[in-house]
Amino acid sequence: MKVKVSLDKNTSYNVYINELEKLNFNTKVVILTNELVAKLHLDVLLRKIHAKELFVVKIKDGEEYKNLQTIEYILNQMCSYKLDRKSLLISFGGGVISDMGGFVASIYQRGIEFINIPTTLLACVDASVGGKTGVNNKFGKNLIGTFYQPKAVYCQSEFLKTLASRELAAGMAEFIKMAVVFDVKILSFLENLDEDKFLNANLDDATLAQIIQKSIELKANIVSQDEKENGLRMLLNYGHTFAHVIENQTGYKKYLHGEAVAIGMNMANTLALNFGLLSEQECKRVQNLLIKFKLPISYKIPNIEEFYNAFFLDKKTHYQKINFILACGLGKACIKNDISKENIMQALKVFV
Amino acid sequence: MKVKVSLDKNTSYNVYINELEKLNFNTKVVILTNELVAKLHLDVLLRKIHAKELFVVKIKDGEEYKNLQTIEYILNQMCSYKLDRKSLLISFGGGVISDMGGFVASIYQRGIEFINIPTTLLACVDASVGGKTGVNNKFGKNLIGTFYQPKAVYCQSEFLKTLASRELAAGMAEFIKMAVVFDVKILSFLENLDEDKFLNANLDDATLAQIIQKSIELKANIVSQDEKENGLRMLLNYGHTFAHVIENQTGYKKYLHGEAVAIGMNMANTLALNFGLLSEQECKRVQNLLIKFKLPISYKIPNIEEFYNAFFLDKKTHYQKINFILACGLGKACIKNDISKENIMQALKVFV
Repeated sequence: MKVKVSLDKNTSYNVYINELEKLNFNTKVVILTNELVAKLHLDVLLRKIHAKELFVVKIKDGEEYKNLQTIEYILNQMCSYKLDRKSLLISFGGGVISDMGGFVASIYQRGIEFINIPTTLLACVDASVGGKTGVNNKFGKNLIGTFYQPKAVYCQSEFLKTLASRELAAGMAEFIKMAVVFDVKILSFLENLDEDKFLNANLDDATLAQIIQKSIELKANIVSQDEKENGLRMLLNYGHTFAHVIENQTGYKKYLHGEAVAIGMNMANTLALNFGLLSEQECKRVQNLLIKFKLPISYKIPNIEEFYNAFFLDKKTHYQKINFILACGLGKACIKNDISKENIMQALKVFV
Repeated sequence: MKVKVSLDKNTSYNVYINELEKLNFNTKVVILTNELVAKLHLDVLLRKIHAKELFVVKIKDGEEYKNLQTIEYILNQMCSYKLDRKSLLISFGGGVISDMGGFVASIYQRGIEFINIPTTLLACVDASVGGKTGVNNKFGKNLIGTFYQPKAVYCQSEFLKTLASRELAAGMAEFIKMAVVFDVKILSFLENLDEDKFLNANLDDATLAQIIQKSIELKANIVSQDEKENGLRMLLNYGHTFAHVIENQTGYKKYLHGEAVAIGMNMANTLALNFGLLSEQECKRVQNLLIKFKLPISYKIPNIEEFYNAFFLDKKTHYQKINFILACGLGKACIKNDISKENIMQALKVFV
């Protein structure tokens, strides 16, 4: 099956689910991956890709390597292979790989084409689609990057079979995000899903594909309407304003991105609860779903003043106003930029 | 006066010549400049700019600092000032500054707006217009960058008064390039121009403005038709395929960019002469014009095999075919990608 991401100016593309057979390129191709993914799946991928010349760049696994130093390393490798403007980059890995691969593709010789082949559930349901690329720096998450769309995305359930339950749970966090923000029916679907099968990578292919498809359909719809995140697309950052601070404070090492998002959603819900946007019952329902999928819902904030100040480097902060994405009932979300410091601190205090 | 650069998708902008009075911004603004320009002109500029908050980032002067390390330094400064997505960057300097400022603007928080205020003739007539941004690395020139258009460009002859004759000549090289490739009438105009007045920065404002206007009109016309350099725009790289190798081999220190382009044009003409695309008389005419403006026309190639191999990292090289931009008679140019190594080496031998 496939889902179309409709954009203007010839940048529309398809996300294919379980449809990767053979890809032939009459150009040089470089595959960007990490050491772990390469060990598990590169052989399988290489049998499917035919190119004029094929190169592989491997980087270390982990969000802590998602920085400009790694970008420079990748660019140097590409230069040494004499890749030209018609060459293609394939990001083969999780969200870190697709974020960096897209960024590199957008700045190598002022832009070459790229394709995403995600190998984590998180990248399938979220990161590989939508054209957000970038890296972190010491100031925060994804502060450096571009909007740059892939030419195609291929999600293959075969690559998800080797994922640890923690990785699968992290992907589920982004899907739960979609449910809370856009579609309450998904919440019921997930409440009825066999979490053991899911977390042990034993879910049947059809159900897994259904999860991926639903998530991408929702995201494609949003991105088509607001590619550059001027409004609607901001809603996808529900939980992320908090998550980015948590990831930064823990050096991008302690939590997987999806785990930080899970905590972030719970923090956002605490704020929403204080404003009467969510009922206690609704908050609890989301908490229970996160817990069901073994996701963390709490983070001990070392210093709430510092935590608060870190919001001002979030990309959604404009003119000193922090844009909080809050659930307004389940299945709906809104942007609040007029919350007083006092009210924010009050919500943060719950996590001290 | 002003010249419009017409592009699609709301990215059109104006280049204003001698029209900078006061600019008011209801956002944070960062001015990127170098130490030399800051000392000479920053006071004047600061009196013209009003912003919510105004910051200045100064970097060292010179093409050898146009690299990813400097980009990281600038990005860190911008993060420390907590610039947001609505903030604006002003590039205030020569081509190095506008290339880097545009690049930083394109990748800071996935893209903020920027304005160019060029302080060299080269940047006025060429670099500040057209949206090419980027930096060099050890493999070659501008191999990392983006296509990202400014919101406006302000060329002020007042800032050109302090330029050394060598800087002015380097700017003239890019204007001569325009003449050879697009408009033979400009050649006659330049042959009649008082080179002493020009090189001593004593040209009257009207004539200087005329040079800038003519160059930008030609460039705007090209960029409007082919923003991403898929064809026509490549012609603007006449002389540059050679120049980039020369600059790389001399560590970006020995020659100003325009000087390397002057040598590169002469090299390209030698190749064109061998193919009968230019007559000896036409070659000589361009040489004489370059010499009249005290531009270099020769570079002693240390090793022609190495020089030849360096072409393969040029951004115009696709599928191992080097695209040479050659003058085909004066005022016209063509792209040749089928020149044998033997023929290229023969032309290079003239410069050994």
